[in-house]
Amino acid sequence: MGSSFSDSKKRVLNLFFEPQSVAVVGSLKEGYFGGYVVIKTMQNAGFQGKIYPVNPSYQEVLGLKVYPSIKEIPEEIDLTIIMINRRSVPTVMRECMEKRIRAVIVVADGFAERDEEGARLQNEILDLAKRAGIRILGPNTAGIVNSANGFIPDPYEPGYKKVKPGSVAICAQTGMINPQAFPYGDLHYGVSKICDYGNKCDVDECDLLEYLESDPATNVITMYLESIRHGRRFLDISKRVAAKKPVLILKSGRTQEGAKVSASHTGALAVDDQIFNAACKQAGIIRLEKFRELFELPKIFSLQPLPKGNRLGIVTFTGMVGVLAIDEGAKYGLSVSRLSPEIADQLNSIFPGLGKPVVDIGPPMAVNNYMTIYADILKTILLDDNIDCLFNVIWTSPFKEFVNEYLKFYETLQGNDQKTIATWIYGPSIPLINEMSGRMEDLGFPVFSDLEMAIKALGISYQYSNRGKGEK
Amino acid sequence: MGSSFSDSKKRVLNLFFEPQSVAVVGSLKEGYFGGYVVIKTMQNAGFQGKIYPVNPSYQEVLGLKVYPSIKEIPEEIDLTIIMINRRSVPTVMRECMEKRIRAVIVVADGFAERDEEGARLQNEILDLAKRAGIRILGPNTAGIVNSANGFIPDPYEPGYKKVKPGSVAICAQTGMINPQAFPYGDLHYGVSKICDYGNKCDVDECDLLEYLESDPATNVITMYLESIRHGRRFLDISKRVAAKKPVLILKSGRTQEGAKVSASHTGALAVDDQIFNAACKQAGIIRLEKFRELFELPKIFSLQPLPKGNRLGIVTFTGMVGVLAIDEGAKYGLSVSRLSPEIADQLNSIFPGLGKPVVDIGPPMAVNNYMTIYADILKTILLDDNIDCLFNVIWTSPFKEFVNEYLKFYETLQGNDQKTIATWIYGPSIPLINEMSGRMEDLGFPVFSDLEMAIKALGISYQYSNRGKGEK
Repeated sequence: MGSSFSDSKKRVLNLFFEPQSVAVVGSLKEGYFGGYVVIKTMQNAGFQGKIYPVNPSYQEVLGLKVYPSIKEIPEEIDLTIIMINRRSVPTVMRECMEKRIRAVIVVADGFAERDEEGARLQNEILDLAKRAGIRILGPNTAGIVNSANGFIPDPYEPGYKKVKPGSVAICAQTGMINPQAFPYGDLHYGVSKICDYGNKCDVDECDLLEYLESDPATNVITMYLESIRHGRRFLDISKRVAAKKPVLILKSGRTQEGAKVSASHTGALAVDDQIFNAACKQAGIIRLEKFRELFELPKIFSLQPLPKGNRLGIVTFTGMVGVLAIDEGAKYGLSVSRLSPEIADQLNSIFPGLGKPVVDIGPPMAVNNYMTIYADILKTILLDDNIDCLFNVIWTSPFKEFVNEYLKFYETLQGNDQKTIATWIYGPSIPLINEMSGRMEDLGFPVFSDLEMAIKALGISYQYSNRGKGEK
Repeated sequence: MGSSFSDSKKRVLNLFFEPQSVAVVGSLKEGYFGGYVVIKTMQNAGFQGKIYPVNPSYQEVLGLKVYPSIKEIPEEIDLTIIMINRRSVPTVMRECMEKRIRAVIVVADGFAERDEEGARLQNEILDLAKRAGIRILGPNTAGIVNSANGFIPDPYEPGYKKVKPGSVAICAQTGMINPQAFPYGDLHYGVSKICDYGNKCDVDECDLLEYLESDPATNVITMYLESIRHGRRFLDISKRVAAKKPVLILKSGRTQEGAKVSASHTGALAVDDQIFNAACKQAGIIRLEKFRELFELPKIFSLQPLPKGNRLGIVTFTGMVGVLAIDEGAKYGLSVSRLSPEIADQLNSIFPGLGKPVVDIGPPMAVNNYMTIYADILKTILLDDNIDCLFNVIWTSPFKEFVNEYLKFYETLQGNDQKTIATWIYGPSIPLINEMSGRMEDLGFPVFSDLEMAIKALGISYQYSNRGKGEK
């Protein structure tokens, strides 16, 4: 089923993520946007490939020799990044053809998303590319990130240097997923690859799915789509990929009005939403509902094991959260678990009344040796055979020493791969919550911004692990 | 319809929020929890009423004389806060009776929410109270906040001193809304009153609705409920109140499992969810779906005027957000508006191509005098008679000077009361986003954590303004 991803196709796609040599055609003026920023960002991130700035008005920039045109570059080029006025793009494409470059990222905008002249120009560069066997990413794209090799050619200043390696690949028809827009740094968010495919005149969601299917650094793929170019091909490929790795998709243009605007800003036709929904079901794609989910939900797959069943354990410091969590879990087929009798007894001996389906750590939180008790409680629950996944709610006091104690304890939980754990941190200090969340994720425990998001993460993780076994 | 809120009842309820003299019965040991914290928190917040600590083991605490028992206090007491072992609460209640105290907050837990003995004790104190005409808030409550007079008797250390005055009243059957749990300080979140009604053995959601109905400091009421004590009374009162001020309710216990756990942790019976839903519709209550909404959605009512219609304007720096916003807006009957021709022309003359239904400020963001253009764009749109409400998306660069420029511009927008504006800030630096959000809300412009939340805020604001005019 579906066409296999040929080696030569893969080699070209690979040039976008692992180029050994990159030409950057654009403004080299210091600022927030442009070729200067692309080069600086790659240098900051430790990219080891060769970088060739191209601009007729400069001799040298950021310690690199500048070439007046692509054809003057004496060596072979794997990838060209073009960020110049749209009218000049075809000329540069022709130079790329002559230079036998195989991969081009067109950051420049003003193509099919803008007006008829832009659409004409987009067709022109696509024709040139097809004739020469060049693949184009874009136009109108913020480009690519590969966290493994420091290839982060962001055209906008992101304000931070590193993107933490992780196993989430994020692709979208927007630059809102790129480092200048999303706070990867502040969140300690780990990614394998990021790709904004922009107007996707050539490289599209199907190419990326196939590329990421065989990317060993990627364990989960999350994607924002406005349109689908080849319905049948998308269905075949996504079905094959989703059988190996979770594929999460947020698709807009659900309403007629939305679809119309979508068409106008990417220049692509939208697909009927009901057809798309049916296709997702058939292909085993996890369909997302909100923008934030694009980033949050993949974490459960990248950091935690899949649950072996639907039995939900809950640790909370207030009953309210337990009730909301149970309500929410029911949406995904999660069922709150009665603890096994031995575990319930053990919990009750740690603190009277703890051994209930919703473990309420509110009362023990008031005692002096609370952190010792907390460690005992959590370790005991994690031994319960009646639980497949755990929703863990932590209250951060306004005191940093608490945060440190929690983290010390979580270190001892590393290597647990029996239960899926989703955490929600709540408390009066936002900086402490942010710090604790980032450090917990560094330890491998995903933290979610909402209780509902945490439960949804467990829910889709269960549904993915249960796929093909009949619905609950 | 419904019973009117009698003056004497109101006077007693008022003692909970505006006491002139407060007795605090509990531990006076320095720490994270207890009477010491209650007193310190009130002092920090500038509470001007008299405070009488009660504890037989102390002479003085935090500069205040400590009394061995309530009856030793030589002056009249408006309110007593009790935070001692549950078994001793009836004794203190008897002292309150003798002292003719009318209002008591029982912070102590371990009552109907814990076990049979607790349920018996709860009945005992309730009986005592009824005989003496005392009103009880709780037991099992984190108490009250009145931002206007510094009455913030939080039993847990919140880590910050002030709660910013605002017009949102928040009530819940949980302490998760109180300052030790929710980051009012970091968020610059403005409230009028906060009340955790705990087990609500006496003072309940109906009392609070009636009290807040006539509270001039409160313009919007948001409430978390697990159970409703008197269905008919609730329906009558909420209908009356919702006609004057928006009433937003999050109710859990939707599923059978959830309802069961809810009953066990508050000791109250839950209500059938479908009946509750119908009641909300009838009463004009805005029903919430997620915990976070409890805090976020009221901001649109407290800070912005109601929209005069359903015509949605969108300013975004990327097309994707426009499409998602249109899809989302359709859920609430919002319709993306075609700009009026003069305004579209003006926008196009500021920057070519801007004058579309979704105003994409992405292209002008790349130009040098961007902030001047931005100010012109936003002010022009706000003049359009074709727009009732505006979803404004701001990208924060990683640079603080941008934030300051945005804020300087927003200052000039203060006093706009023609359109409802909801803002979403997105960018690579979380500290800058947080800072900008807080400062924008200080200026009166609510910022939402999600694009979907911002649209929902506009949506329910439109629906509330349109109530009784027939559904769209």
